[in-house]
Amino acid sequence: MKIARFLEDGTEKYGLIERDKVKAISGFPWEGLEVTGKEYSLESVKLLAPVQPQDVFAIGLNYRSHADETGMKYPTAPVIFIKASSSVIGPGDDIVLPKMAPNEVDYEAELVIVIGRTCKNVSEADALNYVLGYTCGNDVSARDCQLKLDAQWARGKSFDTFCPIGPWIETDIDPDNQPISLKLNGEVMQSSNTSDMIFNCSQIVSYCSQVATMKPGTIIMTGTPLGVGFARKEPVFLKAGDKVEVIIDGIGTLSNGVVK
Amino acid sequence: MKIARFLEDGTEKYGLIERDKVKAISGFPWEGLEVTGKEYSLESVKLLAPVQPQDVFAIGLNYRSHADETGMKYPTAPVIFIKASSSVIGPGDDIVLPKMAPNEVDYEAELVIVIGRTCKNVSEADALNYVLGYTCGNDVSARDCQLKLDAQWARGKSFDTFCPIGPWIETDIDPDNQPISLKLNGEVMQSSNTSDMIFNCSQIVSYCSQVATMKPGTIIMTGTPLGVGFARKEPVFLKAGDKVEVIIDGIGTLSNGVVK
Repeated sequence: MKIARFLEDGTEKYGLIERDKVKAISGFPWEGLEVTGKEYSLESVKLLAPVQPQDVFAIGLNYRSHADETGMKYPTAPVIFIKASSSVIGPGDDIVLPKMAPNEVDYEAELVIVIGRTCKNVSEADALNYVLGYTCGNDVSARDCQLKLDAQWARGKSFDTFCPIGPWIETDIDPDNQPISLKLNGEVMQSSNTSDMIFNCSQIVSYCSQVATMKPGTIIMTGTPLGVGFARKEPVFLKAGDKVEVIIDGIGTLSNGVVK
Repeated sequence: MKIARFLEDGTEKYGLIERDKVKAISGFPWEGLEVTGKEYSLESVKLLAPVQPQDVFAIGLNYRSHADETGMKYPTAPVIFIKASSSVIGPGDDIVLPKMAPNEVDYEAELVIVIGRTCKNVSEADALNYVLGYTCGNDVSARDCQLKLDAQWARGKSFDTFCPIGPWIETDIDPDNQPISLKLNGEVMQSSNTSDMIFNCSQIVSYCSQVATMKPGTIIMTGTPLGVGFARKEPVFLKAGDKVEVIIDGIGTLSNGVVK
């Protein structure tokens, strides 16, 4: 099942996507999935970020191939960092190169976990029962801030528009075996599978739940595979006019432009 | 003026504190301060964290005296990190030593800025016009996670209950000249003045607003002075049964117990 958040008549609604229709539901998807009877053509509505999360947790260095390309050792526990929730944007929204740090803005294709039930101290075996579903994400990162200027990653990963997520939440996939890729202006820059993760989704949810009580709508970005811009022989950074697509086979495509 | 958030008849309300009374207002304090006519004795209500922030920004190493005690150089720009909003608790609530890291939990007395108007790219000169007021905060930190296990501070500073704030928001103080202290079981452990900050409140708000659009209710923790537990000759960490008080002269006292 695909759950979207969308704008209709100026109000934010959630709905279920069925082929080319969106069937509105009442309330939040973690409160139930009762359709209201109203439906819209998918083309006619503006899709929003599928949730406005209270907290955005993220896991660093979680693909073997990405740890290898950055020359870092594999972590022995998930590396948690936090992105400001104010950085979240939706499908089709533009990534804005920040005035403060416009020159080394990089992409990171990620599988995003959306929490569906309040979650604290859950076991790995039980963890996925607390997940509503999964969406695509781009952990946009200003590498100059992240890697040269600041010891902490928070600023470089929290500029406005640096957390595109979407286009919708898919509830019925195996999160630990999904082809994931990223295209920049149509060229494949990242191509991997979530099975390359060092810590899988069950381990990540369980670990984060030992730190924080995660409420419904909280998201966890699960790390990015090989192929980010800064680690290439010829580094590639985002520039105005670019188009970035994160593609996860079982979910869909998150597409965002880049502007100054 | 003192603005509190409190629980009355099971619902959360905001109110203005006048002597021993709380006068309820309608809506959020950044929408206006219209009193409803209902008032309560301050003693009879349960005070909550004065806001439930969407994002908790924090500034590291921002007092000269604290940078000195940790042996770190003075930063040349504010060091931004983020605490999970799920870690916020209110006055009188208990700090819980986390199962995952119970042994090196430390206190940090801090002045907390509460944003009152949506704030993006504001100048230092204009910055304080976007501030609703100030409260006391304790940037509780699991030092083993923060300093030994993790390169990122996010986990060690985001455990549930690790962000006590309160007891209320004071709108009429000079934030850059406030005596600030912390008592542990009645003994003064930190005693300084916000004038020792490397970056003052105007600079901090302006800087953060160049990163993120801060909505009303967003908070910024402004750093802690000399005297934290881990940096003492005989390190001091919080243990069950402790009582921690953060005292800022122009605001009041934030008091929290510690439990397992």
